[in-house]
Amino acid sequence: MKKAAIIGGGVIGGGWAARFLLNGWNVAVSDPDPQAERKIAEVLANARRALPALYDRALPPEGRLTFCDDMAEAVKDADWVQESVPETLDLKHRVLPAIQAAAGPLAIIGSSTSGFKPSELNMQGTRAIVAHPFNPVYLLPLVELVGDASICAQAADMLRTIGMYPLTIRKEIDAHVADRLLEAVWREALWLVKDGIATTEEIDESIRMGFGIRWAQMGLFETYRIAGGEAGMAHFMAQFGPALSWPWTKLMDVPEFNDELVDLIASQSDTQSGHLSIRELERLRDDNVVGMIRALRRTGSGAGGVVRAHEASLSEPGEREGLPITATRQVPVSWTDYNGHMNEAYYLEAASQATDRFMELIGADAAYVASGHSYFTVENHIRYLDEIHAGDRLTITTQVLAGQGKRLHLFHRLWRDNDTLAATVESMLLHTDLSTRRTSEPRAGVSKALTRWVARHAEMPAEGAGRSVGERPGGAG
Amino acid sequence: MKKAAIIGGGVIGGGWAARFLLNGWNVAVSDPDPQAERKIAEVLANARRALPALYDRALPPEGRLTFCDDMAEAVKDADWVQESVPETLDLKHRVLPAIQAAAGPLAIIGSSTSGFKPSELNMQGTRAIVAHPFNPVYLLPLVELVGDASICAQAADMLRTIGMYPLTIRKEIDAHVADRLLEAVWREALWLVKDGIATTEEIDESIRMGFGIRWAQMGLFETYRIAGGEAGMAHFMAQFGPALSWPWTKLMDVPEFNDELVDLIASQSDTQSGHLSIRELERLRDDNVVGMIRALRRTGSGAGGVVRAHEASLSEPGEREGLPITATRQVPVSWTDYNGHMNEAYYLEAASQATDRFMELIGADAAYVASGHSYFTVENHIRYLDEIHAGDRLTITTQVLAGQGKRLHLFHRLWRDNDTLAATVESMLLHTDLSTRRTSEPRAGVSKALTRWVARHAEMPAEGAGRSVGERPGGAG
Repeated sequence: MKKAAIIGGGVIGGGWAARFLLNGWNVAVSDPDPQAERKIAEVLANARRALPALYDRALPPEGRLTFCDDMAEAVKDADWVQESVPETLDLKHRVLPAIQAAAGPLAIIGSSTSGFKPSELNMQGTRAIVAHPFNPVYLLPLVELVGDASICAQAADMLRTIGMYPLTIRKEIDAHVADRLLEAVWREALWLVKDGIATTEEIDESIRMGFGIRWAQMGLFETYRIAGGEAGMAHFMAQFGPALSWPWTKLMDVPEFNDELVDLIASQSDTQSGHLSIRELERLRDDNVVGMIRALRRTGSGAGGVVRAHEASLSEPGEREGLPITATRQVPVSWTDYNGHMNEAYYLEAASQATDRFMELIGADAAYVASGHSYFTVENHIRYLDEIHAGDRLTITTQVLAGQGKRLHLFHRLWRDNDTLAATVESMLLHTDLSTRRTSEPRAGVSKALTRWVARHAEMPAEGAGRSVGERPGGAG
Repeated sequence: MKKAAIIGGGVIGGGWAARFLLNGWNVAVSDPDPQAERKIAEVLANARRALPALYDRALPPEGRLTFCDDMAEAVKDADWVQESVPETLDLKHRVLPAIQAAAGPLAIIGSSTSGFKPSELNMQGTRAIVAHPFNPVYLLPLVELVGDASICAQAADMLRTIGMYPLTIRKEIDAHVADRLLEAVWREALWLVKDGIATTEEIDESIRMGFGIRWAQMGLFETYRIAGGEAGMAHFMAQFGPALSWPWTKLMDVPEFNDELVDLIASQSDTQSGHLSIRELERLRDDNVVGMIRALRRTGSGAGGVVRAHEASLSEPGEREGLPITATRQVPVSWTDYNGHMNEAYYLEAASQATDRFMELIGADAAYVASGHSYFTVENHIRYLDEIHAGDRLTITTQVLAGQGKRLHLFHRLWRDNDTLAATVESMLLHTDLSTRRTSEPRAGVSKALTRWVARHAEMPAEGAGRSVGERPGGAG
C-alpha cells in the first residue's frame, strides 16, 4: 500500500490528505498546530461526502490516517511527500531539506506553493517540484507541476492514479499559470469594488451567471473560438484584438492595499455571504461542484473526462451469494429528495447501470451496440423495501430469471451497506435491431453466454419476482 | 403577445431572437446580411435543443419569427428593440436614432454593446440603455444593464420574464463589469502564449480543471471567503493582499497585437479544437452548459436559481381525457443513453415529478412535508410502450386508482408529442410520518381531497394496471 506524508495540515494539506486517503493510500500528517487533527477531520468529513459522489463505482477501501509529532517519522517510507506550509520562502527553506533528509531517494517531494518557482524552493540543493493544487483539493482535478522533467513525469503518473489532472508547465515563472490569470482578475475586481462600480456580490453574479459557466467546461480560448464563428480564431482575434490597446482594464496600475480596502471588501462579503457559515458554504460549493462535474461526465469534457478515466481504472467487484455484483457505489446527495432519502427514480438509475454492467458480462457491450444490436427494457417492477440515504454504500447483484430467444428477464437486488436488502428491480428486456428498432434474435455469442448464466441462476430463489403492484407478499399471482 | 425587434442578426442578435421566441414573444429581425436568415435558423436550432432542456416544465408556445427588409417595419410596435450591430460607434450613431424614430415611446431600446457607455451611445439624444448579454444568449442568464435608472428597472422586469438575470450597474464605465474581468484574463493569457509558458490548450485546461468550476457556481469573492476559512474574508485579504505588489501579472504592460501573435494563437487553437467544427463545439458547449445549470437547479445557486424561479412562473397545464395533466416538458439530451433514446430511469424521473405535482393537487405539498407528513413510494411498475427521444415533448396524466387510508395507488400515462402513449407508470405509495419514518394516516384535508379524486377516477379504465412483469396483455392476474 502506498504512503503519503502531508507536511502542513491546513485547508490545502487537509485536502491532499483526503484525496490520498479516499484513494486507498495511507497518510501520515505532520503539523505543529494543536488544531491540525480537528481541522483535517473536518476536511475529511467534507471529502467523504463529496468525492465518492463523483463516481458510479466504489473507490478502494480508505487508507489509514496517522498524526506524527516528528516530521521525519511522517516522511519515512513515504512514496509522496507534500509540503503545504505557509507561503514564506524562509520556512520552505527550513522544511524542504529536513523532508529530503528523512525521505527515501525515490520519494516524490511536492510543494503546494502558489507563487514560488522550483529554482527558489531548491536553493539549498533539494529536489522538490511544484505540485500546486486547487481548493477543494479532494474535488478539483488540477495540479500544476513545475520542475525537473523526469520527476514531474513520475509525479504525473502517480497523480493520475488518485484521479487528478497533472498539468506540466515547461518554463518556471512566478505564480505558474492559473494563478496568474486569477491574480489578473483579482486586481481588476478590487478596482471595481474600490471605485464603487460594483459590490463583491455583483461581481460574483457577473461571473457565475455568465462566463463562469462557459469556462467551467471549455476555458477561455475554446470559448472564443466559438465566438469567432465559422470564420475561426483568427477572425475573433482580428475583431477583438484592437481592444488590447483600449483602456478596458485598470491593470496598468495596482490598487493600494490598505485597511480601508480590506474593510470594504470584508464588509461587502459579509453582506453577501454572511448568512452562511464557512462549513455551510463549503458544503454548498461541494454539492455544486459534484453536480456540475457529474454533468460533465456525460460528454467527457474537462473534469468529467478525468473522473470517467479514473473510474475505468477502479477494480471490478466480484460475487455475492453466487450472483455477480454488478454495481458498488456511494449514494450522492444529488440522488436524494425532499423526503430526506434516495429518490425513487435513482433506485432505477442504479439498477439501470447494473443492467449495463451485466450486458458487458454477457458480451452485449459497447462494441456489440456499435455493431447495431442491443437490449431495450420493456418493463420494470421496483419494490422499495427500505430507505437509502446520501453516503450509503450500495451493492447490486443481478440474477437471470430467463434468457431464451429475444427475451431477457433480470432480477436485481439492491443491498444497502452490504447487509440490508433495500429494493428489488425486476426487468424484462427484448433484444433489438438498432437499425430497424424491432426485436431480433441475439448473436450466437450472447445467446451462449446467457444460456450458461441461466443454467446457474434459474433454480436459485427469487423472492419478490413475478408480483404485480399492491400484491401482498406470498399472495397468489 | 409581446414583440421584440432584433436589429443585427449575428450570433448575439440570433441568440436574443431565440431567447424571445422560445419564451413566446413574436420576433422581427432586420439585418442587411443576405445570410442572416440562415444564421438565425442555425442559432434557433441550437436554442430549441438546449433552452427547454433547462426546465422541467414546458415553455410557452413559440412566437412567430419574421424578417423585415425595412428596419422601421421591424421596430414598429415592438415592446423591446435590441441593437446588436457591429461594434463601432459610428454605426451605432446611425442605427439608434433610426430605431428611436420608428419605435413607440414606451419601447425599451437595448444595445448589446460590450464596450460603449450609454453616454457615448446616446450622444444624439437617443434613450438607449446598454443590455449586454453573454453568448450563448439563449442559455446564459446574465444581462448587464447600464443607463437611465427608470428604463433599466422596467427592462429588468421584462428580462426576468424571459428567464434572464439582469445585473444593473450603477456607474457607467468602459466595458461594464464582466468584460473588464475577461479583458484582464485575456491580456494575461496572451502573454503566457506569447512567452511560450503555456499553449492555448494548456491555459484552457488550467481554467476548466480548476477555478472555472469554482466560479461557475460562486464567483470570485465567495470562493475566496471560503479559502479564508473560519477567520473570514479579512484574514484572506491579509494573507493574499501583499501579492498585489508582487510581479505576478504581466498586466502593467500590454502585448503587441500583430500578425505573429494572431498566427500563434490561431494555430494553437486549431491544434486544440480543430477536430471539431464550430457547430459541433457549440453543441458540446450547450450540452455541458445545460447539464451544469441543471445540476445547479438542485441547490438553487446561480443560474440554477434563475431557472427555478422562471419555471415557477410558467403557466400550469390543464386536463386531458378527464385526467389532470401533471407534467409537460421537453426531453433533454442528458436523459438519453447509448441506445439513442430516453433511458429507462428517466421515464420514472418524469413520473416521479408528476407524482410530486399530484401531491400538490391533493394538498400534500411542500408545507405538508415541512409539517412532518409525506408519501413514500413502495412499488412502481413501468411499461415501456414506445421510444422517446431528445427534444420530444412529454405530457403526463395521473389517475387515482385507489386512495383510502394510508395507501395511494396512482397510474401515470406518459404521452409523447401528445398523441402516442409511450409508457405507463403504476405507483403504490404509503402515507408516512417523517419523524418516525413509519406509515400513518393522512391529515383530514388530504384524505378528503383524495376521496373526491377517487370518486372521479376509480371507474375510468386503466388498461395495463395491475400486471406483473412479463404478463401478456389481457392475461389473467
